[in-house]
Amino acid sequence: MQVQVMKNILGENDKVASENRKFFNDNNVFVINLMGSPGSGKTSLLEKTIAELKDKISIAVIEGDLFTAKDAERIELHEVPVIQINTTGGCHLDAPMVRRAADSLDLNKIDLLIVENVGNLVCPAEFDVGENIKAAVLSITEGDDKPLKYPLIFKESAVVLLNKIDILPFTNFNLESAREDLTALHPGIKIIETSCTTGAGIPQWCEWLNSLVSEIK
Amino acid sequence: MQVQVMKNILGENDKVASENRKFFNDNNVFVINLMGSPGSGKTSLLEKTIAELKDKISIAVIEGDLFTAKDAERIELHEVPVIQINTTGGCHLDAPMVRRAADSLDLNKIDLLIVENVGNLVCPAEFDVGENIKAAVLSITEGDDKPLKYPLIFKESAVVLLNKIDILPFTNFNLESAREDLTALHPGIKIIETSCTTGAGIPQWCEWLNSLVSEIK
Repeated sequence: MQVQVMKNILGENDKVASENRKFFNDNNVFVINLMGSPGSGKTSLLEKTIAELKDKISIAVIEGDLFTAKDAERIELHEVPVIQINTTGGCHLDAPMVRRAADSLDLNKIDLLIVENVGNLVCPAEFDVGENIKAAVLSITEGDDKPLKYPLIFKESAVVLLNKIDILPFTNFNLESAREDLTALHPGIKIIETSCTTGAGIPQWCEWLNSLVSEIK
Repeated sequence: MQVQVMKNILGENDKVASENRKFFNDNNVFVINLMGSPGSGKTSLLEKTIAELKDKISIAVIEGDLFTAKDAERIELHEVPVIQINTTGGCHLDAPMVRRAADSLDLNKIDLLIVENVGNLVCPAEFDVGENIKAAVLSITEGDDKPLKYPLIFKESAVVLLNKIDILPFTNFNLESAREDLTALHPGIKIIETSCTTGAGIPQWCEWLNSLVSEIK
């Protein structure tokens, strides 16, 4: 019964996601669905990404949170258009939510739309919002066992950012084992080690992102 | 529609949760529902808790994970009864899952049952499994904004463990602000700073736990 309901919800979502995808493509907007655990560093990565790329391409952001506009307020300081979605307790963004938010943006002026999903390593991966790619942020403080324990998000994502890499020496995170597990789950997945504190990996991530945006222009 | 379905699911869950609660109470078993983000350190805290308490009280563990038995394998090394629940993608434990797992345990021989929920700061807080108390683990690497962004779990929990406190100097986590937000959300919530690396706070946490278990004996 619960499964049946979930199938209906997912079917309805996929329909709107396809419409979103066409809508974004028609407007030449490249869309990333950025996912990860609470506190993995999604918003900090976004801030660094905007700072690095905003003179090259025009960026807009949709922020997904249960409550508060804390993340949108942080992004707003970087002077890019940002829409906050509050799910009021909901554990993920879905395609209709993203469509309603996107309708408030002037897509003609946007090259790259980054959708920061609710902090959650499980549910967001199940809901297509019409993005071009999904990207997963995994803080190395979360432990190297996470890819095998939460496989769907890593199977679905084109890229995984191993974030907070500056704290690596103070953890028991095994980089080699994490890379092996990620590649076994998703052969060809792009893996970038990043730190918003030291700036490590940010240029590599931004260059890659910029090249993807250029491809659809 | 989606809300209606959710209400039905929650109503059914609450019915089984009440039965679980009576069942555990009748068997003099104190039950904790341990929740937190992926990688907040729930399993490590469990290992430390078992090591500290197992000569004083008898402990059993129910492990909730989407996939793998990695956590149960870690707990098994400590020679306490452990049951692994795999939700095969499901984002939380519910009362029927916990009941089925508990039926495999000899409750007459158990004082304290710790249910480690799926790593998720959102969904588990919505599902009563029949526990005596909920406990939240928040790694300080996740950031001090998390209580206000994910309020339900902290409103529902009797205690919050601010974990990985040893890494505090390498983060921008503001302890004072986190404590203020937690207390504003949930006046009287118990807050313990812990580290599984240095052992900080573990004796305090275990003494408190032991006193709760003693009360129902």
